[in-house]
Amino acid sequence: MLSKSQLTFIRSLQQKKFRQQHGAFLVEGAKSVAEVLGSGFVVERLFCTDDFYKENAPAVVHQRPPVEFVTADELARAGSLETNDAAIAVVQTRPNEHPAPRPGTWTLVLDDIRDPGNLGTILRVADWYGIRQVLCSATTTDVYAPKVISASKGSFTRVHCWYGDLEEYFSQAVEQSDSQEVSLSIYGAFLDGENVHRTEFSTVGGYIVLGNESNGIGAGVARHVTHRLTIPRFGDAESLNVGIAAAVLLDNLRRSQPT
Amino acid sequence: MLSKSQLTFIRSLQQKKFRQQHGAFLVEGAKSVAEVLGSGFVVERLFCTDDFYKENAPAVVHQRPPVEFVTADELARAGSLETNDAAIAVVQTRPNEHPAPRPGTWTLVLDDIRDPGNLGTILRVADWYGIRQVLCSATTTDVYAPKVISASKGSFTRVHCWYGDLEEYFSQAVEQSDSQEVSLSIYGAFLDGENVHRTEFSTVGGYIVLGNESNGIGAGVARHVTHRLTIPRFGDAESLNVGIAAAVLLDNLRRSQPT
Repeated sequence: MLSKSQLTFIRSLQQKKFRQQHGAFLVEGAKSVAEVLGSGFVVERLFCTDDFYKENAPAVVHQRPPVEFVTADELARAGSLETNDAAIAVVQTRPNEHPAPRPGTWTLVLDDIRDPGNLGTILRVADWYGIRQVLCSATTTDVYAPKVISASKGSFTRVHCWYGDLEEYFSQAVEQSDSQEVSLSIYGAFLDGENVHRTEFSTVGGYIVLGNESNGIGAGVARHVTHRLTIPRFGDAESLNVGIAAAVLLDNLRRSQPT
Repeated sequence: MLSKSQLTFIRSLQQKKFRQQHGAFLVEGAKSVAEVLGSGFVVERLFCTDDFYKENAPAVVHQRPPVEFVTADELARAGSLETNDAAIAVVQTRPNEHPAPRPGTWTLVLDDIRDPGNLGTILRVADWYGIRQVLCSATTTDVYAPKVISASKGSFTRVHCWYGDLEEYFSQAVEQSDSQEVSLSIYGAFLDGENVHRTEFSTVGGYIVLGNESNGIGAGVARHVTHRLTIPRFGDAESLNVGIAAAVLLDNLRRSQPT
């Protein structure tokens, strides 16, 4: 059974300030908890039903977190999901390590993505298209928010997010590549860019930048963009959701470089 | 001011049975209401703030619906949106007319899409890619639900949805095309289909079928599919959201037929 203090602790992790204070976040629901148990993340505590434990015993034993058996009702009361008949894990957040350059690979860059559902969707899409690294502006919504974790469908375990000053990041990255006499390819999604169906993407990797849901990529980041891209429109909708745009851009990228 | 009976009436339209009984549905928020006022839909009543009325006077005068001036607080209490400082329109539903064949065009087919947010997103994506007609299984969520209308961002005014028996529809369509000695191209999204990056789409239009969020396309509809398609995966995510899949498939289709 969940004690009152456990309930309070779990609920507190729905707020960013308590996640930062405790260095922990919540993973909820059977599939996501099973994924996190099998990942490199450290599970500090596991609250689960008997059934979940039986079905996932090998994964639980692998990590050996303290386990508390609870009912589906208790899970629903403690967590952010409307229905959860399986498990909630309290998991250690990872340090916000400055991303190492990864020559030959593609990195996704998110400038001020505010909606948790969108960020979760983007992580899932990135994972589908084999992108392992995402750079987020400090204003981008927190990757450890329950809605992001839930919408990512387990992809948060495989896609690493770094938060920081994107302008500074790009300034340094450009300086460094200049000194090595190579050029960086930084593609950004705009309304007035080149048709992505006709874009020839760099063959040595680079960056794909997506901007805020309403305002797009901010001026400070935009000035580092070397290739402005647009998804061509064939009908009348005013815009595409940013998660959809991420998927279409990455699909076009991978289509041009299938290996 | 909203009377108690008006409030009850508006709230009742959040439920399908009352929408069917009254032949009406709700459109909420400034942008969506402005779009519906400028569309072919008949607005039966408009509840709006003074500001919304002033900003949209030409559109309102065009339709001349009965207007009731209300406050943002009243709108939030009556509607399904958390914030709405502009307007709610009560709009006549359209008859569920059997779709006429449209040679040379593409039709989207939805077999048992359950999530209202997904259906709204799919309508927006269809609108972006110039698809005007969507056929929905009777089990697909109601297009007139507030969450669908809201997620479609106005695209419900341009994309026509028909609900009915898809197996029967395809049986008849195939019979008819056989008698005319033409063949139908029915593309469906599966996990084990041809790589959509290498697909040559029909040059005379056809159908793109998407299935249920968990179970995909049902067996009855699947047997009519002439081309099984798959979006290739380059990483580890288990699946893509159905709205994302719709966008990627339509992008590949339009990319191969840009005119």
